[in-house]
Amino acid sequence: MDEMVAAVDIGGTKIAGALVDRGGRMLAQCQRPTPAKEDAARVLAAVTEVLDELAAAPQWSAVRCVGIGSAGPVDAPKGAVSPVNIPAWRGFPLVDAVREHLADDLPVVLTGDGPAMTAAEHWQGAARGFRNALCMVVSTGVGGGLVLDGALYPGPSGNAGHIGHISVDLDGDPCPCGSRGCVEIIASGTSIARRALRDGWQPRGDDASAGAVAASAAEGDPIALAAFARAAQALAAGIAATATLVELDVVVIGGGVAKSGETLFAPLREALHDYATLPFVRHLELRPAELGTDAGLVGAAAAAAQELGLDGWL
Amino acid sequence: MDEMVAAVDIGGTKIAGALVDRGGRMLAQCQRPTPAKEDAARVLAAVTEVLDELAAAPQWSAVRCVGIGSAGPVDAPKGAVSPVNIPAWRGFPLVDAVREHLADDLPVVLTGDGPAMTAAEHWQGAARGFRNALCMVVSTGVGGGLVLDGALYPGPSGNAGHIGHISVDLDGDPCPCGSRGCVEIIASGTSIARRALRDGWQPRGDDASAGAVAASAAEGDPIALAAFARAAQALAAGIAATATLVELDVVVIGGGVAKSGETLFAPLREALHDYATLPFVRHLELRPAELGTDAGLVGAAAAAAQELGLDGWL
Repeated sequence: MDEMVAAVDIGGTKIAGALVDRGGRMLAQCQRPTPAKEDAARVLAAVTEVLDELAAAPQWSAVRCVGIGSAGPVDAPKGAVSPVNIPAWRGFPLVDAVREHLADDLPVVLTGDGPAMTAAEHWQGAARGFRNALCMVVSTGVGGGLVLDGALYPGPSGNAGHIGHISVDLDGDPCPCGSRGCVEIIASGTSIARRALRDGWQPRGDDASAGAVAASAAEGDPIALAAFARAAQALAAGIAATATLVELDVVVIGGGVAKSGETLFAPLREALHDYATLPFVRHLELRPAELGTDAGLVGAAAAAAQELGLDGWL
Repeated sequence: MDEMVAAVDIGGTKIAGALVDRGGRMLAQCQRPTPAKEDAARVLAAVTEVLDELAAAPQWSAVRCVGIGSAGPVDAPKGAVSPVNIPAWRGFPLVDAVREHLADDLPVVLTGDGPAMTAAEHWQGAARGFRNALCMVVSTGVGGGLVLDGALYPGPSGNAGHIGHISVDLDGDPCPCGSRGCVEIIASGTSIARRALRDGWQPRGDDASAGAVAASAAEGDPIALAAFARAAQALAAGIAATATLVELDVVVIGGGVAKSGETLFAPLREALHDYATLPFVRHLELRPAELGTDAGLVGAAAAAAQELGLDGWL
């Protein structure tokens, strides 16, 4: 049987699992809602239930390792996680807990969700074939990860590419992370909707989401367009900063806000022209993500395969 | 005889050369003023004169390669340079020109001056022993370079770590690079002096340099202190952004403005506390550079030794 990685994707809403093969195909997919408000043991129980369901699949005997992608921040060397939206897990020793639960003596590799999504887009999606990439999710939050010199660069603690929390407006609004003017506090879907409402945008019905702002923008509503323009400007400044620091060939953007297509990409391309000015960053290509919500699982598997040097994977 | 690298450091003011050995010691040092306002051939002549002087040294026979560190931007794959302060050189094919001039068939390696300075501090200076570092020069401009996973990361074109031109103030002052609110336009020595004068600082005598502002700040002058605080804030936002993107253990700062010591480092440490907030960037250490003006030559040699994989060097 083909070699497999058991992948687990831990987010604030759901905990998903799948067996992933060398071609990036997923088998035995399963998931549980994240009991995000409950205690640490309950959240862990949702993870072990997902693992037990995977272990019941006939392909489990081909599994070589477990790859976990988790909402961050993570501490990969310690195998610990502190997902912002799961308050009961602060420095929670997830890797040890999973190892203890497994009957088999499998290696367990932990990666942040931004690097995991990045590994997936580089392996099977829009960043394929590029040697230097930033992959981002722009949704209720803003996350990301880096490919440097042809391989995922998770960074020593597994958090590299955390573009949502770099400041592009040093005197700007306070961010829940403690800093000011972070990309996320300007460009997340939540922030786009907040800005539009503040500036007088009138939602039709009770949908005041970024998606509804995008629909208004697509119809030419000036307030909705301005909210997207401001988000695009912050994203552009952050992307240009990243390209200026590490040199990028491509930027891949996924997540709910990116689903608005040209409503985001058109002003983003324009703003990028203003901020990415040095000769070595001007050629930067912008692409929509290809993998959608599967990226977390595919990427957790890819990151584990890279970390363990599994043959014939990446 | 011990193996040597012939190092050349090309800046807007001077072109320096030395033979560098495995211990980072420099022999046969020489230099020429940069004829920065003259034509491309004259600037090249200054470089070849430096090389000829090095080639006349008895140790030349031990030279294994030529390492060039140049003011940027550079295009390492093409061997071309476009130093901002040498207008006659735009896409100038420096590596080919140097190869043509050399009697010997030596490899020639080109690096940006930021990465070169970084290689030096990592090899022989304040970043020694750290696996992940940002090294910076804060002087009339702001430059930098990165060490990732234990080695210099010059980036595909040799410009990685260009922290002076990331925007930390997306609505801020226009920067000569074409962007806005770059770290350099707020935190360079030139900008510190400009801000202090604008806000009413009175230089004693005719020295209105950042050094004179630093002297006033050290005596408690509130306008001078505010100018340094603002520079420190921009540096902190840029450093925190870099650490959040690539994860750093140490930041090394050299250059004229860093010579003011605690006048810069005290507000910088404080501002860093405000901007570097995520758990994986909080432990960041701040250190003054150790190598001074020799860093360019030592680093050009180190970068070449790394690129060519010379045995026993780094």
